[in-house]
Amino acid sequence: MHDTRFQERLRELAEDRTHGASELARRSLEVAAESARHAPANDVRELSHTLHERAAAMAAARPSMAPLQNLLGRWQEALAELPAGELESARRKAAEAALRLTEESRSAAMEAATTAAEFIGAGRTVMTHSLSSTVLEVFRRLKDAAVRAIVTESRPLCEGRELAARLSEWAIPTTFITDAEVGLFVERADLALVGADTVLADGSVVNKAGTYLLALAARDRGIPFYVCCESFKRLKAETKRPILEEMDPSELGTPERPHVTVVNVYFDVTPARLVSGWFTEHGPVREGEAWP
Amino acid sequence: MHDTRFQERLRELAEDRTHGASELARRSLEVAAESARHAPANDVRELSHTLHERAAAMAAARPSMAPLQNLLGRWQEALAELPAGELESARRKAAEAALRLTEESRSAAMEAATTAAEFIGAGRTVMTHSLSSTVLEVFRRLKDAAVRAIVTESRPLCEGRELAARLSEWAIPTTFITDAEVGLFVERADLALVGADTVLADGSVVNKAGTYLLALAARDRGIPFYVCCESFKRLKAETKRPILEEMDPSELGTPERPHVTVVNVYFDVTPARLVSGWFTEHGPVREGEAWP
Repeated sequence: MHDTRFQERLRELAEDRTHGASELARRSLEVAAESARHAPANDVRELSHTLHERAAAMAAARPSMAPLQNLLGRWQEALAELPAGELESARRKAAEAALRLTEESRSAAMEAATTAAEFIGAGRTVMTHSLSSTVLEVFRRLKDAAVRAIVTESRPLCEGRELAARLSEWAIPTTFITDAEVGLFVERADLALVGADTVLADGSVVNKAGTYLLALAARDRGIPFYVCCESFKRLKAETKRPILEEMDPSELGTPERPHVTVVNVYFDVTPARLVSGWFTEHGPVREGEAWP
Repeated sequence: MHDTRFQERLRELAEDRTHGASELARRSLEVAAESARHAPANDVRELSHTLHERAAAMAAARPSMAPLQNLLGRWQEALAELPAGELESARRKAAEAALRLTEESRSAAMEAATTAAEFIGAGRTVMTHSLSSTVLEVFRRLKDAAVRAIVTESRPLCEGRELAARLSEWAIPTTFITDAEVGLFVERADLALVGADTVLADGSVVNKAGTYLLALAARDRGIPFYVCCESFKRLKAETKRPILEEMDPSELGTPERPHVTVVNVYFDVTPARLVSGWFTEHGPVREGEAWP
């Protein structure tokens, strides 16, 4: 993978508005594997240097998404162990390490979904916000267990429509509402369940803007609010708060006017005190319990 | 105004999605005045009967909007005093009564705006949701007092765009966000201020869906949340809770799919416990104080 092609993939990663953090982290590892195989390099030292650079660039492309930092960080640790002097073997090993992490991340997400699905059980109405691949997986596991869904449109790009389409294919009875109707519908749910782009060290959750409002409404109405994600989403204690990414204001479709600034921040932070529990591949963690 | 024309105006009232309760209540009084002048009737008794019927039909057309019930109810009381036996004089008096109430309502709203503007004072950032003609009036009064606005788009019809356009004309620095971004922006405001479609007897507020979420976020961040409206919006203690009107789901623009039900409820109820104060034509009422 030459530099121009890498820059293209990097831009795609930075501009992707339709996939969640897990999905994009795995894509970044695929780019990492491809880079390992084909990045221009005359020896292992040069290869390693380029791969470190590319990993750092990809992690920086999505500052709100911890799994990119965590998984690419893990990959960079693996690069330290490449066999010096054997370029082809180093390329193969670096690519394998990236693909192994992709697999590890995917299976962690699947196990987190299992944890959540087992906890939720049959016959429940689950309210969610935005489109999380992990939450989608929870619905898939519960589709024959009389699960019902309440889904928000999730402005500005309305990825809730895609979620509704997927639930429709599984014949899951789904109520579709605006983000503004969240307060009206939360008490019709047995629980709220969202994915996460990042989980802060204290358990606070960075997720699509509007998640914090759902958590507030759930708390106000006595409905439990859960988060489901693999533990790669969790920031280490020492990491500083992620930047909340701001996207193109034109996505709102509002005419430009003097004195009016359209602001399109994609993520908000739901404080840990509003979270009833987190489901990860290590099992459920309830409010007030220590994370594994 | 013959029956067909009245039915047309009634349908317009029922289907109006762009005006608030104050505006529509005043329009219903204009229809009442026109009916008083031109409804077919051979004598005062027949006229009075028709006008009562039409008032009831208009009040029923917008069940979430107390001012229609209150103002048309006041008008019906006035009809009891029409001079028997003098049809033309009765028509004139009934029309005058309706127009007097329109004026009373308009001036009450203006005075409520004065109350709010004086309370808020200069140099404040005010966050609002949806488009309230009374809140717009508050901004107009503060436009030369360095007021700033944070405005939500207010799905599904995005009347926040119209509000932003009006604020832009007055050169008020305005931040425009999605309904989902409310939790991110509320702490940049000094206060939240909304209008009301109806105020329940206990001070709870029926307003555009999403208002409850703004109130929750404001409370969570320690930002005061105020309501500004004329007292015609207040339901009497004995009245039962208004129906929360549900509109055409197609307004959300979401494709129809099997198993997916799109629900478009226009209003939510913000409990009085989340309201820091109400501004009416009688002055400010603070949390915990009795209403006049």
